[in-house]
Amino acid sequence: MVWDAWGSPSGHKPLPDQIRGLLAQVFGVSGEPVARRDEGDVPLRASALTPEHRAGLVAVAGADNVSLGHRDRLRHAGGKSTPDLLRRRASGAQDAPDAVVFPASHDDVLALLAYCAENAIAVVPFGGGTSVVGGLDPVRTGFAAVIAVDLRRLDTLTEVDPISGTATLGAGLQGPRAEELLAAHGLSLGHFPQSFEYATIGGFAATRSSGQASAGYGRFDDMIERLRIATPAGTLDLGRAPASAAGPDLRELFSGSEGTLGIITEVTLRVHPVSETTAYQAWSFPDFATGANALRTVIQAGAAPTVMRLSDEAETGLNLARAGNIGGGSVGGCLAVTTFEGTAAHVAARSAEASALLAAAGGTALGETPAQEWEHGRFSAPYLRDALLDVGILCETLETATSWSNLANLKAKVTAALVDTLTQGGAPALVMCHISHTYPTGASLYFTVVAKQADDPIAQWAQAKRAAGDAIVAASGTITHHHAIGADHRPWMTDEIGDLGVQVLRAVKQAIDPAGILNPGKLIP
Amino acid sequence: MVWDAWGSPSGHKPLPDQIRGLLAQVFGVSGEPVARRDEGDVPLRASALTPEHRAGLVAVAGADNVSLGHRDRLRHAGGKSTPDLLRRRASGAQDAPDAVVFPASHDDVLALLAYCAENAIAVVPFGGGTSVVGGLDPVRTGFAAVIAVDLRRLDTLTEVDPISGTATLGAGLQGPRAEELLAAHGLSLGHFPQSFEYATIGGFAATRSSGQASAGYGRFDDMIERLRIATPAGTLDLGRAPASAAGPDLRELFSGSEGTLGIITEVTLRVHPVSETTAYQAWSFPDFATGANALRTVIQAGAAPTVMRLSDEAETGLNLARAGNIGGGSVGGCLAVTTFEGTAAHVAARSAEASALLAAAGGTALGETPAQEWEHGRFSAPYLRDALLDVGILCETLETATSWSNLANLKAKVTAALVDTLTQGGAPALVMCHISHTYPTGASLYFTVVAKQADDPIAQWAQAKRAAGDAIVAASGTITHHHAIGADHRPWMTDEIGDLGVQVLRAVKQAIDPAGILNPGKLIP
Repeated sequence: MVWDAWGSPSGHKPLPDQIRGLLAQVFGVSGEPVARRDEGDVPLRASALTPEHRAGLVAVAGADNVSLGHRDRLRHAGGKSTPDLLRRRASGAQDAPDAVVFPASHDDVLALLAYCAENAIAVVPFGGGTSVVGGLDPVRTGFAAVIAVDLRRLDTLTEVDPISGTATLGAGLQGPRAEELLAAHGLSLGHFPQSFEYATIGGFAATRSSGQASAGYGRFDDMIERLRIATPAGTLDLGRAPASAAGPDLRELFSGSEGTLGIITEVTLRVHPVSETTAYQAWSFPDFATGANALRTVIQAGAAPTVMRLSDEAETGLNLARAGNIGGGSVGGCLAVTTFEGTAAHVAARSAEASALLAAAGGTALGETPAQEWEHGRFSAPYLRDALLDVGILCETLETATSWSNLANLKAKVTAALVDTLTQGGAPALVMCHISHTYPTGASLYFTVVAKQADDPIAQWAQAKRAAGDAIVAASGTITHHHAIGADHRPWMTDEIGDLGVQVLRAVKQAIDPAGILNPGKLIP
Repeated sequence: MVWDAWGSPSGHKPLPDQIRGLLAQVFGVSGEPVARRDEGDVPLRASALTPEHRAGLVAVAGADNVSLGHRDRLRHAGGKSTPDLLRRRASGAQDAPDAVVFPASHDDVLALLAYCAENAIAVVPFGGGTSVVGGLDPVRTGFAAVIAVDLRRLDTLTEVDPISGTATLGAGLQGPRAEELLAAHGLSLGHFPQSFEYATIGGFAATRSSGQASAGYGRFDDMIERLRIATPAGTLDLGRAPASAAGPDLRELFSGSEGTLGIITEVTLRVHPVSETTAYQAWSFPDFATGANALRTVIQAGAAPTVMRLSDEAETGLNLARAGNIGGGSVGGCLAVTTFEGTAAHVAARSAEASALLAAAGGTALGETPAQEWEHGRFSAPYLRDALLDVGILCETLETATSWSNLANLKAKVTAALVDTLTQGGAPALVMCHISHTYPTGASLYFTVVAKQADDPIAQWAQAKRAAGDAIVAASGTITHHHAIGADHRPWMTDEIGDLGVQVLRAVKQAIDPAGILNPGKLIP
């Protein structure tokens, strides 16, 4: 990934004319992009790694796999939140880890952690670099140095069990490569978050990722059969059966541990045969409440499609779910998208059952096209954000989840907090929302916020984010449904699990990582 | 529950003639039951509770709620494993907790734990008393005394959210009463383990219970939305949303904690509308491998019934799944039972899909009757065990789970270990098995063992159980799929989660319960 924007240069596109027109009309922004700096010209804080420590790391990982290079350090400087990108576009010296290490195996990682624990070197585990919550910030306070441990060389499919439908994958495998390796065996994982093209198997596990097909294949934590974890205190191999009553499920303690309790090196996952067929069906609902109720009916009946999403009136009006046609003619009301995967018989049975429920709950079938358009454009939103940032527009997302009965209340409170904060100066703000993950007892809410950048857009967003987070907690939502805690959500972690819950996490960390080298400043308050 | 057998006296029945005939034929046992002692005549170890400690407990819970009575102590002496029952039928003084306390609220439990931590009094949380793994043994070594904390007064349905499909239930509610309270709102939990009639909501959560309808409604841990837990260090309120990425899922640390990390006082659970209709369908498969493969096909296709079970040839031959007709004419092969619950439309769609898959995989439909017979008798097996113990037959069960590809291997190894150990003296042993819980990646195996009692039946079973546990671990199964660890499975806990996993549990316990009063001798090696 490029260092100051999402993805690869080939994905970057100028804003379409219809969006430029919209920006001029709503925000009075001309749409002329500011040029970004060449990576080589970016001033970078000098590496704090001593020659002795460099030699120590080289002794573990090999000289070719310890980099202090400008480019490597820049590209491991953090994640891809809007504040991250705004900081990188600002002038002045940039912060970055003091070195990047590329271990080749679980044992390499174990040895690295032992060395770093002994030498007070902080370690930031690095997968795809797609964190949007400051989960990769190179925090070095109290340490001799901070290194990024990039897991890209842990990139093999080590075991496939087609009978049981499981596969063991290296933590450093990015989404597309993992799917490619599985496809050679006729299998698929079916985990497609927006970060899919870059994020890794280890990162998915460490952050409790949830993909767009979660209704059909579950969240990533649902897919985990076994975890292999390297820690300063040794190795953990967790998970002996599809389900067990042998005490607490420790997989669930390390899933979501965000690199603070160990480095996940290998994950055994539930996979499924590549789908025989996919059916697409889009729907229109008169309003968000009717649409949400329809989705609820389907998931509570046990008739969930593979994908099931609902955009609110604002998002539908802008066509945000149909990436190729944003700002174009909208269907009005609220657009819902469903897809059904599996054998032909399963797809036929499931789509008949779900479609009957959606129709009975007030939905009007729109045919396949809008659902296919959504699927086609589903990984492109982060590129659009970059193009907006380039022309002086603030664009960021945040998400939460709650029970069905609290969904409308939570949506209203978060929207009001964002709009109130961002429009204090009299400038307009667009707040759009969709449901992308449903459960029998509730659903997620994903907000997209667009406003004109203030003089200090980082402070502008920090204020809006704080107001939104406070509103989420006050309205009984979770501070994050699938973006994790990192540094940015840490102020709300005590609200989430209570003082005693925080003490429990600290006790686990103390037992595993007494030197505190693992991803300092993240997750645990 | 009576103290030395399962359930209520009204459930106890003499052995049917066909079973007596079978016992005489296979084991040479006459079938004449030994009389049990009257509860009042059982000699009991004197209570070690000092008058000061008694007064202290009374100050917290009230005089009426602290019992040192013979009957109360006996009935809280432990669980209901076969060794438990054999010990109670043996002569000599029985062990029991020094007192039984009946708190009325979460705050009562908090105050009790604070008092006991200060006064080195061990605490055994007590729900329905149905543990079959020594989870309720009154371990007092190193403590001034040991008390049972019986949660039966925490017995209310405190909140219902019919939109979200959740309900908040007191930890002391037994299965039938919980269903009764929910039924008044048109709702059901759908958790029906064999212990259903006695076991409690708190016990289900503390032991990761799994009910017979797990294919349809999930394991108990899947149903948990929120947990309220009293600990010596204060209160934990866990769970803010149907799903979250806010770090590790701490609910999964306390689900399965078996009273060693706190006392669960209230559980918010996913519930569903009372089923409109139930369809029953039994199947015959030529052999266990074909049947297991058929079940796998169904669950991997996402077409699971509400209940789906498969008995092996031995269990089918004895008709063990058809409680009213055990030992009667069998269908031969391997019997499978399916039930489908939900709306009429859902039941029709799902049973059509699943039945087509089962038939295609080699099943022969047997109609409704055997499935209805199974459902009718599904809570009666523990009573049959008592009647067998009474006539000198050893009868016990054990269970495990593994991946689909390892299922036949694990079944063969455990069966061989049991048969080899029990037949060393030349006496025959019957080992039967069924699959009662299926997952996309694997299934459970539940073994029922019947043999003639040796002179020391407790030692006889201990040897068989040890061999079975070692075989399970060696063949990569989990030491327990739904019976928990307690005291009896503790020897295999390090095999299950590794040394470092054990250290993590100890660290959590040290943070929460530094005095170590919570259910000593259980779960954590």
